[in-house]
Amino acid sequence: MSVRVGVLGATGAVGQRCIQLLDGHPEFELAAVTASESSAGLSYSEAAKWRVDSPIPSGAADLTVRETDPDAVPDDVELLFSSLPSGVAAEVEPGFAEAGYVLSSNSSNDRLAEDVPLVIPEINPGHLDLLEVQRDERGWDGAVVKNPNCSTITMVPTLSALDSFGLERVHVATLQAVSGAGYSGVSSMEIIDNAIPHIGGEENKMETESRKLLGTFDGAELSRHDAEVSASCNRVPTLDGHLENVWAETAEDPSVEEVEDAFRAVESLDLPSSPDPLIEVFDDPSRPQPRLDRTLGGGMAVAAGGVQTTPAGVQYNTLAHNTIRGAAGAAVLNGELLRSDGWL
Amino acid sequence: MSVRVGVLGATGAVGQRCIQLLDGHPEFELAAVTASESSAGLSYSEAAKWRVDSPIPSGAADLTVRETDPDAVPDDVELLFSSLPSGVAAEVEPGFAEAGYVLSSNSSNDRLAEDVPLVIPEINPGHLDLLEVQRDERGWDGAVVKNPNCSTITMVPTLSALDSFGLERVHVATLQAVSGAGYSGVSSMEIIDNAIPHIGGEENKMETESRKLLGTFDGAELSRHDAEVSASCNRVPTLDGHLENVWAETAEDPSVEEVEDAFRAVESLDLPSSPDPLIEVFDDPSRPQPRLDRTLGGGMAVAAGGVQTTPAGVQYNTLAHNTIRGAAGAAVLNGELLRSDGWL
Amino acid sequence: MSVRVGVLGATGAVGQRCIQLLDGHPEFELAAVTASESSAGLSYSEAAKWRVDSPIPSGAADLTVRETDPDAVPDDVELLFSSLPSGVAAEVEPGFAEAGYVLSSNSSNDRLAEDVPLVIPEINPGHLDLLEVQRDERGWDGAVVKNPNCSTITMVPTLSALDSFGLERVHVATLQAVSGAGYSGVSSMEIIDNAIPHIGGEENKMETESRKLLGTFDGAELSRHDAEVSASCNRVPTLDGHLENVWAETAEDPSVEEVEDAFRAVESLDLPSSPDPLIEVFDDPSRPQPRLDRTLGGGMAVAAGGVQTTPAGVQYNTLAHNTIRGAAGAAVLNGELLRSDGWL
Amino acid sequence: MSVRVGVLGATGAVGQRCIQLLDGHPEFELAAVTASESSAGLSYSEAAKWRVDSPIPSGAADLTVRETDPDAVPDDVELLFSSLPSGVAAEVEPGFAEAGYVLSSNSSNDRLAEDVPLVIPEINPGHLDLLEVQRDERGWDGAVVKNPNCSTITMVPTLSALDSFGLERVHVATLQAVSGAGYSGVSSMEIIDNAIPHIGGEENKMETESRKLLGTFDGAELSRHDAEVSASCNRVPTLDGHLENVWAETAEDPSVEEVEDAFRAVESLDLPSSPDPLIEVFDDPSRPQPRLDRTLGGGMAVAAGGVQTTPAGVQYNTLAHNTIRGAAGAAVLNGELLRSDGWL
Repeated sequence: MSVRVGVLGATGAVGQRCIQLLDGHPEFELAAVTASESSAGLSYSEAAKWRVDSPIPSGAADLTVRETDPDAVPDDVELLFSSLPSGVAAEVEPGFAEAGYVLSSNSSNDRLAEDVPLVIPEINPGHLDLLEVQRDERGWDGAVVKNPNCSTITMVPTLSALDSFGLERVHVATLQAVSGAGYSGVSSMEIIDNAIPHIGGEENKMETESRKLLGTFDGAELSRHDAEVSASCNRVPTLDGHLENVWAETAEDPSVEEVEDAFRAVESLDLPSSPDPLIEVFDDPSRPQPRLDRTLGGGMAVAAGGVQTTPAGVQYNTLAHNTIRGAAGAAVLNGELLRSDGWL
Repeated sequence: MSVRVGVLGATGAVGQRCIQLLDGHPEFELAAVTASESSAGLSYSEAAKWRVDSPIPSGAADLTVRETDPDAVPDDVELLFSSLPSGVAAEVEPGFAEAGYVLSSNSSNDRLAEDVPLVIPEINPGHLDLLEVQRDERGWDGAVVKNPNCSTITMVPTLSALDSFGLERVHVATLQAVSGAGYSGVSSMEIIDNAIPHIGGEENKMETESRKLLGTFDGAELSRHDAEVSASCNRVPTLDGHLENVWAETAEDPSVEEVEDAFRAVESLDLPSSPDPLIEVFDDPSRPQPRLDRTLGGGMAVAAGGVQTTPAGVQYNTLAHNTIRGAAGAAVLNGELLRSDGWL
Repeated sequence: MSVRVGVLGATGAVGQRCIQLLDGHPEFELAAVTASESSAGLSYSEAAKWRVDSPIPSGAADLTVRETDPDAVPDDVELLFSSLPSGVAAEVEPGFAEAGYVLSSNSSNDRLAEDVPLVIPEINPGHLDLLEVQRDERGWDGAVVKNPNCSTITMVPTLSALDSFGLERVHVATLQAVSGAGYSGVSSMEIIDNAIPHIGGEENKMETESRKLLGTFDGAELSRHDAEVSASCNRVPTLDGHLENVWAETAEDPSVEEVEDAFRAVESLDLPSSPDPLIEVFDDPSRPQPRLDRTLGGGMAVAAGGVQTTPAGVQYNTLAHNTIRGAAGAAVLNGELLRSDGWL
Repeated sequence: MSVRVGVLGATGAVGQRCIQLLDGHPEFELAAVTASESSAGLSYSEAAKWRVDSPIPSGAADLTVRETDPDAVPDDVELLFSSLPSGVAAEVEPGFAEAGYVLSSNSSNDRLAEDVPLVIPEINPGHLDLLEVQRDERGWDGAVVKNPNCSTITMVPTLSALDSFGLERVHVATLQAVSGAGYSGVSSMEIIDNAIPHIGGEENKMETESRKLLGTFDGAELSRHDAEVSASCNRVPTLDGHLENVWAETAEDPSVEEVEDAFRAVESLDLPSSPDPLIEVFDDPSRPQPRLDRTLGGGMAVAAGGVQTTPAGVQYNTLAHNTIRGAAGAAVLNGELLRSDGWL
């Protein structure tokens, strides 16, 4: 009874993670992988220079790579995970949706579009209903759901918890892992013994996507949260795991204990990839740390620690695995929500 | 006519940098080095496991290491640079000052004491006059001047510039190099492929020291600046160079150009270790970067970039070499100011 | 029916790995942990600063840390895994053996003693019978078995395979991970952007231990293999996984295919921690790589690749996880062999 | 009276080092820089994404980048340093030589050609006379001289010294810095927490180039040294500086002291870029280390240490800065030799 799924852009860093996460998935069966034209026709093991630190899943290795084209994907595939470069995604995703495929996309295009749900299942599952608006407006049989940027996902679960105290203003500084830029994104000469205080477009994504995620959907329209978010993004020599320093100003003045309780109270969902707890709270102020804590909950948990209350608001640190919870796993989890909510 | 100087705690990471900076110094002649009892009697080259990436200065290599005791230091030494662990410094520095030595100390003890000047020469040279109060109160022939913590020094020159627009509130996140913790401070297993969101006591130092540095000395008493400073400190796998993301809220709303002009307008001093310009401003938003920019001005310059004006205030990044401008060079520069101002 | 076991020196880097590997072990039940006097009486979770990237096993967290003394360990514990510093081990291991405990020790003391078996179960299981000699000579009820040094374990399985062609001479250069030196062994300032061409005593260990492992036990005496082994050891900025470049000269001239077949032919054992295959052979000459391949076989496999036949002999690369196959896992596997062979 | 020089391929990693080394050069004046067509017409500061950790030389910043074509380079430029990709170099270098330019090339094409001198000035300056053969055979007014591969340069000065004892056989394992692969050559995801035991073509270069460098030129023909060289090459997470473990078997059995004396006896030349001493010998077996020792002699010295005499021959470690002594500086030094020997 499992759903046949495919991965668009399966050979890249996020695509490979997606293949890894789908291996042995209880609800999804990998049936198709696509990549750029030059890889089409090769076996997946030939086309993907596999770099994940677990062996390439046998069910994926022998799949023939297809072109990233609706006609090239079998009709019995119902759900597609897209980790295409955003430029390519912008061109091809609408065609897939028109052809009836449901897409859970990690690509950054259209994340802010009025009729595209941007979803973290444990945080704003109700936004998925925006798909009715989308289908109405676009005349699609299929659908496109987006997950947010990796650095945004890392902080929004905690911000959502703090919104119970009236979230007003956020400062966030990120220490982002190199895998966030893809396999060739950051050269070793750039980053060894270094840090780079700029990631193009990232600050804006954090500011806009978080307000959409925290916004309200009234059944017809999605209004953004009016919290003011200001981000400063850095690349550091870490392989996986984005660490973020957050200051959140709230209308109320919660105590450290109330903040930690609010973090712990964010509920996980009854979906295969939703970890329990969703937010792991550390007492030790030196945690979370990327290398030690990025694989909590199979890489799907968010870790928080160092909670302080200061004149500048609630101050804390948060961490998530950027290519699992922040990308491939986010897309898979959205796929699980799509299935559970009956969109397939 | 050069001043004979000594280095207390000469074998540690900061002590070694100090020895390196004094090599060929136009005003100072290295005449004594001290270390812990176990090293006393050895030659400096035997006692120091030299790890700076330039050869050990010949003038230092053959010096006999002395005990860290006023009786062990020759009387004709006038100025002592102290890079002792703060616990040791708290015990021995007063004795040296009582014995008539002038100390330019990098140790963190007593930085906030009412009668101890905390000085960055280009920023608050007038605070040095607090030494009169110090001598009065303590009955010392000598004196103790402190330079601030490395992460504080990195941001205060730019904050001082912004104070012309009425500095009110600061958020700062740091990405600090491992050398800031000393040679054995951070193990490789802790930091490779990782980042640590906590450095004990550092946030408090940044918050309190910066307000003292930006404060006003009326000839009798030093009042602290009332800006609210909130810091979040991280250790990253970088060898040297602290990078900081700053948001500064000011009474006025300066433009990016006005901010950059204010940075460039901070004047260097006519002292051997004061670089010109003091603040190097980058247009490229991906700069400054630790590995590329930490040696600007011989490691004594501050680099700034990525200036933006946002609803959250002026946002920018700043960088300085933590063991040169942030420690050994800071102490040497304070020594130069002490000499220039006639305190020797 | 599981055997109750203890870990001596349980709080260090290897001790922690041991605790991790014993979690859920099908044959062993963790019943006691010891550490230095200062930790005795604390719970294990308090005493161990847990740094493995999986959570501390619940069965270990609440154990009370005991002193490393035979009297402090319960009598029903039959098997002890020792990862004590070698100086401490030299002092206390004989006392444990005399008191009747069977020790599987990773400590380097006594590895070359005539009556102490040095064992890699898949390679020289028969050496275990040396315990009869040991008990005779020492009058122990217990016993001490050693596993070799991490860099030795990494190359000996392949050398053993090549001995079928008449092993005569070996050159080996190692690229060793920082975890091999323990948690505080290598400071970050030493190793970031660096490599260190010296590890004290390591070259000698590789030369002597490998000849003992490849030697012959005739029931009474163990004679060493007469191959000449020359090692050059380097520390590199890798967390886990020792990579080694080997040249092996043999009496015969095997082809690349014969060498790879010989590697693949080394049999794994029917023990819980023995991986199948023992030696994973890569075609891709850029493999094995520490980060990608160190966890093969749960960290217990050896990976080999880049096999060439040159005038200088058979040239290839080999890799193993230094704290699992090279230390904690080696000790656990020896424990499994001890049990299987009836020594408990 | 300085010679006007140009740099072909000036925007790459080696080209930038070359520009840095020519800044303030006592004999050479930078007059032209070339790059790929897409950069032609831009200023050098616009075309080169400058990544060296000293500011871009003012004399270079404003030069207009030219096409890499003999017609595009002014006639009064006499000497060209080439750091072109080898494929491009193979196409364009002959045309420059035919047009009368003298080229000191770091590109790997033609290094083994019978009539192309491969030169390390302090080791085999006499090979330069092969240029007469080259001009005869090719009918060039100009000339092409090559420097060897970075990993070859690192070991050949010491091998040359050992040849006084009758060099017969060499095993060498390399730990090579990422800069050797150029700016984008090694991605951070490949190398952080890792090592790669393969660098395409590198082993062969070390084996063949070293035999040519150590060979004899009789005025007409160059015969290769008959030592057998076997190399195993690794990439490690180091920015600059290749470290190599060498075993050299010699006809005689020199003592450690004789070996070190032989290393120290290799003479430097009276050329601006030839360091004195050429080979720095360390007593401390943990040296040389890339980060600490790569800048000895301005990056032009070779460092050696850890000398042992073993049954496997003379064993030692050697280090050189791969983009200075191993590439850009090697080319500049060859240029100085060309000038000194009257080839311009």
